[in-house]
Amino acid sequence: MTVGSGTVSFQRVRETNLGVVLRTVRELSPCSRAAVASATGLNKTTVSSLVADLMARGLVRETGRNSRQRVGRPGVLLALDDSSIAAVGLEVNVDYLSVVAVDLLQRELVSRHVPFDARSAGARECARHIAHTLSAMAADPGLSGRTVVGVSVAVPALIDDGTVTHAPNLGWRDVPLRGLLSDLLREAGMEGVPVRVDNDANLGAVAEYRVGSFAGTADLVYLTGEVGIGAGLLVGGEPLRGSSGFAGEVGHLSLVPDGPECACGRRGCLEALAGIGTILRGAVPDLVPDRPLSGDDVARLVEAAVERARGGDATAVGALERAGTWLGRGLAMLINVTNPGLVVLGGYFVPMGPWLLPNCRAESVASSFAPGAGGCRVELSSLGLSAAARGGATAMIHSLDAGLLPLPEPRAPAVPTAPDPA
Amino acid sequence: MTVGSGTVSFQRVRETNLGVVLRTVRELSPCSRAAVASATGLNKTTVSSLVADLMARGLVRETGRNSRQRVGRPGVLLALDDSSIAAVGLEVNVDYLSVVAVDLLQRELVSRHVPFDARSAGARECARHIAHTLSAMAADPGLSGRTVVGVSVAVPALIDDGTVTHAPNLGWRDVPLRGLLSDLLREAGMEGVPVRVDNDANLGAVAEYRVGSFAGTADLVYLTGEVGIGAGLLVGGEPLRGSSGFAGEVGHLSLVPDGPECACGRRGCLEALAGIGTILRGAVPDLVPDRPLSGDDVARLVEAAVERARGGDATAVGALERAGTWLGRGLAMLINVTNPGLVVLGGYFVPMGPWLLPNCRAESVASSFAPGAGGCRVELSSLGLSAAARGGATAMIHSLDAGLLPLPEPRAPAVPTAPDPA
Repeated sequence: MTVGSGTVSFQRVRETNLGVVLRTVRELSPCSRAAVASATGLNKTTVSSLVADLMARGLVRETGRNSRQRVGRPGVLLALDDSSIAAVGLEVNVDYLSVVAVDLLQRELVSRHVPFDARSAGARECARHIAHTLSAMAADPGLSGRTVVGVSVAVPALIDDGTVTHAPNLGWRDVPLRGLLSDLLREAGMEGVPVRVDNDANLGAVAEYRVGSFAGTADLVYLTGEVGIGAGLLVGGEPLRGSSGFAGEVGHLSLVPDGPECACGRRGCLEALAGIGTILRGAVPDLVPDRPLSGDDVARLVEAAVERARGGDATAVGALERAGTWLGRGLAMLINVTNPGLVVLGGYFVPMGPWLLPNCRAESVASSFAPGAGGCRVELSSLGLSAAARGGATAMIHSLDAGLLPLPEPRAPAVPTAPDPA
Repeated sequence: MTVGSGTVSFQRVRETNLGVVLRTVRELSPCSRAAVASATGLNKTTVSSLVADLMARGLVRETGRNSRQRVGRPGVLLALDDSSIAAVGLEVNVDYLSVVAVDLLQRELVSRHVPFDARSAGARECARHIAHTLSAMAADPGLSGRTVVGVSVAVPALIDDGTVTHAPNLGWRDVPLRGLLSDLLREAGMEGVPVRVDNDANLGAVAEYRVGSFAGTADLVYLTGEVGIGAGLLVGGEPLRGSSGFAGEVGHLSLVPDGPECACGRRGCLEALAGIGTILRGAVPDLVPDRPLSGDDVARLVEAAVERARGGDATAVGALERAGTWLGRGLAMLINVTNPGLVVLGGYFVPMGPWLLPNCRAESVASSFAPGAGGCRVELSSLGLSAAARGGATAMIHSLDAGLLPLPEPRAPAVPTAPDPA
């Protein structure tokens, strides 16, 4: 099949311009069509046509009148339509699925946390469980009548174009997750919903940038504190993925050449010195079982360690403070290389934060070349274990604005507004 | 003064479109106006007007006729005008000024290397020397009749908006270099020539990306091998500067917590283990004077070390090989954090490359988490000590294309091409 490049290109321009108008209404809302024309440089006829299209698709709506306008015919104002669409983000981790749906204004509609042993289930069973969770979510009364514009799936893994190439903590290799999910969703009646698969740390970073307590910090790092330590790096608000997707492997920065053995086979890695396993073995040595820790173990033991630290137990406090020092050394390396403005500690680091943070902050300053760690702050996440799911949903809405995601189909023919009866 | 935003915005659109047409002619040259219109989506009248403007400014010229065109009136073809402008890049380092001028096609017009003791001279005297070198360069017969569109100055320093905030190896602090140079160039009759000041490692990286042996590798790191070790990181072809300009301080990554003392006051930094000073003290211990090394010392001693290594001297070879191992460990940290596709070793690392590279490559693979160092190659620069100057000149031409640098004033009124006599 040959497609005239002129046609394709026109279609592209139209999509891009729909995104431009959507973004502009988001920024200026409530605003008139004339204001959109003036802000975008598009002419008024084009803006009217694009607005009619966005209204038919349920993305923009008319709202009230411009009371500040003193002269001439009162104009109808535009705002985002927060009632028609939803974007869904899901995170698979070792011991749970977390799923979040947001509206066009990034407000949370539904959120769920489902215990699930993803490691034992294996990749295919896990994909079936994800598809089931997604279709149950789409049928939730909280999403009633909404079009799902896209689904994002976060995995603690290296991802290449929708395929999970390596997820050490899940035991997965080369799983074509996007394809599997698209097929399963088609069977579940969600045909054609765009599916994206991304790294959990990257999506955690996106969530912090868009909706976290320090939203808007464009050069930030999100550190996952799950079974492994991974980093999502944003540069100018965009994820830094590296030339083959391996950026952010900070868990395996070598801090001490002859330090303790790491699961990766090397010695003295950050994860071997300040990973959850090491912290727990140091903080609550009597409670740690003599076998690999399950997700359940970790959640339970973190709670116990925090309780003991709160009670002033010297062993627990000492282990957490030591981990804080090592985390600070690791962060200093990140700071020396990329000079972020903010590092956000996520996952299980959050409940342990009060004992980790003081040493972590002091050491990141002491070990960085830039005075005061180049101004880098170290803070705790407020997004809890749903950060990556939230980041995925948020990224979908952002893609819609950027014209990078198919817009929902028009529900009604795109007609211009009826003439004003006044 | 109030400027109507509509006017400013129109002016901006015109500048942007001039850049778009310039870039398009660069890509398609030789090409017809119709081809430019088709590639850019601009209409033919607009393209004709923009081309006329670019011709009046000496950036585009007409060349021959389209012999492949069989039907209709033969079209005149367009190409870049390589005869009218020049962009100049200059690097200040501890013991030299290096200066390069290139034409619109990025071809080198003139290049000079001037020994100069910048550390002893102090910032103001150095600025005068730079201005003198630049005006001498502008008067060079090789640039005769050309308009200098911009000057880039590379400094081994932290730069903030034209001010050198800290150049440890030059002993400068808070020197408003761009302002000083603009004033001095005005006195020298080069009024209004845009001046930029940037970090030497960043500009070295730009040079590698645009004109080096591995040009086009968008995620690359350039490692300066001067008195200090700095890194210029490109992500997607753009310098990664960090939130306060400190990105790339890899010389102070701590490789061994209790390692040798570093000039920064910490221990075990990469620079203390594999910096030029340490390498030379290990390789030619009998030749190293008992005082801080001058730039002259370094050049002389590097030559001696290389000569001995070439002769099989075990002390020299051992010192270089050890440095290669440490460099590899440092690179592994860079790779774990940003996963570049290529690391280019520059400066004095180039002549020492045959003894550094084998261990450096092996260790960067062994110490990275990603298999095979995530595909990262380690290579030697082919740009020598003029890399940063070359990068600056190149970046100026790129800015011209991107509409980020004022275009040269029209030499003649912009008139459309005379009607074809045929």
